[in-house]
Amino acid sequence: MADPRFFRRAGPFTLGALADRLGAQSGGAEVAFGGNPDLAVTDVGTIEDAGPSDICFFSDRNYAIAFAGTKAGACLTTPALAPLAPPGCTALIVKDPRTAFALAAHAFYPDDRPPVGAEPVFGSGVEIGSGAFVDTGVHVGAGARIGADAVIGAPVRIGENCRIGPNVTLARCLIGDRVILHPGVQVGQDGFGFVPGPSGLLKIPQLGRVLIESDVEIGANSCVDRGAMGDTVIGAGAKIDNLVHVGHNVRIGPHCVIVAQAGIAGSCRIGAGVLIGGQVAISDHLTVGDRAQIAGKSGLMRDVPAGDTVMGYPARPIRQFWRELATVTRLTKRDNKP
Amino acid sequence: MADPRFFRRAGPFTLGALADRLGAQSGGAEVAFGGNPDLAVTDVGTIEDAGPSDICFFSDRNYAIAFAGTKAGACLTTPALAPLAPPGCTALIVKDPRTAFALAAHAFYPDDRPPVGAEPVFGSGVEIGSGAFVDTGVHVGAGARIGADAVIGAPVRIGENCRIGPNVTLARCLIGDRVILHPGVQVGQDGFGFVPGPSGLLKIPQLGRVLIESDVEIGANSCVDRGAMGDTVIGAGAKIDNLVHVGHNVRIGPHCVIVAQAGIAGSCRIGAGVLIGGQVAISDHLTVGDRAQIAGKSGLMRDVPAGDTVMGYPARPIRQFWRELATVTRLTKRDNKP
Amino acid sequence: MADPRFFRRAGPFTLGALADRLGAQSGGAEVAFGGNPDLAVTDVGTIEDAGPSDICFFSDRNYAIAFAGTKAGACLTTPALAPLAPPGCTALIVKDPRTAFALAAHAFYPDDRPPVGAEPVFGSGVEIGSGAFVDTGVHVGAGARIGADAVIGAPVRIGENCRIGPNVTLARCLIGDRVILHPGVQVGQDGFGFVPGPSGLLKIPQLGRVLIESDVEIGANSCVDRGAMGDTVIGAGAKIDNLVHVGHNVRIGPHCVIVAQAGIAGSCRIGAGVLIGGQVAISDHLTVGDRAQIAGKSGLMRDVPAGDTVMGYPARPIRQFWRELATVTRLTKRDNKP
Repeated sequence: MADPRFFRRAGPFTLGALADRLGAQSGGAEVAFGGNPDLAVTDVGTIEDAGPSDICFFSDRNYAIAFAGTKAGACLTTPALAPLAPPGCTALIVKDPRTAFALAAHAFYPDDRPPVGAEPVFGSGVEIGSGAFVDTGVHVGAGARIGADAVIGAPVRIGENCRIGPNVTLARCLIGDRVILHPGVQVGQDGFGFVPGPSGLLKIPQLGRVLIESDVEIGANSCVDRGAMGDTVIGAGAKIDNLVHVGHNVRIGPHCVIVAQAGIAGSCRIGAGVLIGGQVAISDHLTVGDRAQIAGKSGLMRDVPAGDTVMGYPARPIRQFWRELATVTRLTKRDNKP
Repeated sequence: MADPRFFRRAGPFTLGALADRLGAQSGGAEVAFGGNPDLAVTDVGTIEDAGPSDICFFSDRNYAIAFAGTKAGACLTTPALAPLAPPGCTALIVKDPRTAFALAAHAFYPDDRPPVGAEPVFGSGVEIGSGAFVDTGVHVGAGARIGADAVIGAPVRIGENCRIGPNVTLARCLIGDRVILHPGVQVGQDGFGFVPGPSGLLKIPQLGRVLIESDVEIGANSCVDRGAMGDTVIGAGAKIDNLVHVGHNVRIGPHCVIVAQAGIAGSCRIGAGVLIGGQVAISDHLTVGDRAQIAGKSGLMRDVPAGDTVMGYPARPIRQFWRELATVTRLTKRDNKP
Repeated sequence: MADPRFFRRAGPFTLGALADRLGAQSGGAEVAFGGNPDLAVTDVGTIEDAGPSDICFFSDRNYAIAFAGTKAGACLTTPALAPLAPPGCTALIVKDPRTAFALAAHAFYPDDRPPVGAEPVFGSGVEIGSGAFVDTGVHVGAGARIGADAVIGAPVRIGENCRIGPNVTLARCLIGDRVILHPGVQVGQDGFGFVPGPSGLLKIPQLGRVLIESDVEIGANSCVDRGAMGDTVIGAGAKIDNLVHVGHNVRIGPHCVIVAQAGIAGSCRIGAGVLIGGQVAISDHLTVGDRAQIAGKSGLMRDVPAGDTVMGYPARPIRQFWRELATVTRLTKRDNKP
């Protein structure tokens, strides 16, 4: 599933070879009865997007309906869940499907360097600062300016009239037009994903990209991780302040405003026109509806409906937050009366 | 008003030409009855500092007294507020003065690159690290050390015996003596200012500077934005830790201590000798008095008088914070008794 | 005590010469009656690790037992505490021992540049990115990759098969094998330590190192300060996310997970396998036991026993946090009933 411009894929492996390899690394892996060990597996994928020559994993009954419809040719799963595999999907039975999947991803993507491409291509009027490094395969659109000592990894695409600040690092990303990245912005590095492994925590290969749509602005020293599977997306016209963290697979809608030092954990869905205050923290996998507002320094632990305003830690409707604070203040005054 | 060493100004424009241009971009702009459309306007400015050939904006009755005394030759304002323009100040009537002002600033400052200057000037004993880039017009004082791969934009001034760390970026700033900037510090990039524009959010040109006084120390990967109009100032002897955010037009007094990951939003006034704990957030436009102390992780939403200590989210006097917490703990214990 | 590979030491000074110098800078310093002013002092040290030719400081009765056992040849202390000096340790009597100690450290370490070493040494298969700077005395282990525009200060040691990202800065650190540092990581800069000085805040020389053990991963734009005296340590297999702050002399055990934007203040002891959520703040000098969990956005102000889970600001046992929140919500609803 990984974009072959950005990731070097090994394989294919037969299902039997994968079983041998993963079994040796993680304590046993067995092709389900009746499965074809000679099936050629070419890539890892998710339940949703894997195809007949891909392998996915299934470890959580909450995804049973999606799993019933998977087109994956093979699936890492547990003995208990293996009977749920639909016809055409061979179960590869393991103890811990997530760990086995991470090991499989390492097998298919053993080299974390992007492929070497052709000479970089520059549109008219591009300016490249002193000491900036532009790797092979990069395209830079007309009128773009790359700051001094910026590092543009292979084979990033940058649109027209962008301003990439000094000391910025870009990797595995596609960038629209008129995007402004201030100094020290880091885009496209590995997301933060680990599973328990044979010896300590095992890194889950991060095989997605970052898509930054047109007219986005990102403040100094902010960080946008690339997706694990699938992409991290910053919607058109979004404005992001300094020192903001955007985790892997986050999708930010168009025209959002995200104030300094906010952090959005992995796989969140942020709607259009959302306002996120400074130092807000948003837990992983949450959904924030269009035009919602999150007051500064809030800690979001639940979804927010479109148009709502929330505040607090944990964040709750803003009127409730202020009322509860008033209650505490009143009770404290009463109890401390002489 | 912008420092011509740092910003390239276009114009002048006649008031009539400005009206045509802004009107086309934002849905109508009209010189008030009796106003002179041939007035030559040379720059944008604030109500306070604009002169007879400058244009300011007025959109908020709270500033009516200041507006009555403005020396601006012209002013973007609404039909309702236009009658308040003092003699000598021609109203240019628009629907949204702030948006029109941002558009006017774009007209006067269409090129965000600093002017090209003469060869950089280095005092005796200056050391420049490998890969560091020092742009035209820069002055570096005697004994200063510039780290490897640092980027010093045109035409920054650096005082004597400063230590500028590796991978630092400096732009549009004036720096005193004996200043220490640790690696990855970003100074002088655009502040975070936007208004609703014809298509999405419109960037407000950031036309101020950063002034860092002598004996300041700033920790790794901290960010100090330059002012929008006027300057961001870090007072003499202030010590700032890692990953701190200082917004545009913030003024920090001398000898403050600001602990890691604190964030100070735009236009705050921080007194002398203030102590700001780690991960504190300070909302925009607040004033913190001399020697005040803000406990770590507080969220400041009101001014703090000189000498006070506050804590909490929102921050309140520290005794009140602890008392309120004790009340909640006590009531919870009482209600959970068997 | 400072590692001579990383720090240039001046001296030795006789105790009398030190007394003259510190006295002039800080308002008086006197060798205790019977002390030998000709004692040659070669270095500064702590009560615990100073030897017969070193000088330490003692200003807090809580450390009286440790002080009784010190092997230091001399000690900066107050008139009131001087009688507690053990035999063999000459008191150098000052008004403020901490400030005098900082001044003494400046005397021994007047030059904050690392010593110049031999040509860097590279293991087989090392890759160095464009514009990266590797200073003298650096060792880079086999198979390591140094990103473009990274800066490796003298004389850092990097183990085998490490990945050092672009725009990283390393100073005064020793790094194990298979360590991954993402772009913009800053390691080994000065910690945040000051004392009141003759004119404003006086910097305490930061004379320790950073030790990063094998299999550690650190996210983009995170910062790890070096120790003041002694080292900052990141234990084997620890995984640290983006924009995290690790203060001086923090010791993080093996296999910890630290989520984005968390901050750990100076001298904390974090056990093995601890989970620290995003935007957590941990006050200085705290101890967190093995396998403890700190919920995201908590503010830790007390030690946490091994295995406990805490949440809130200030952090408390997680059940207590949720109960207290429920109490507030219930009382608020009751009082706002029609």
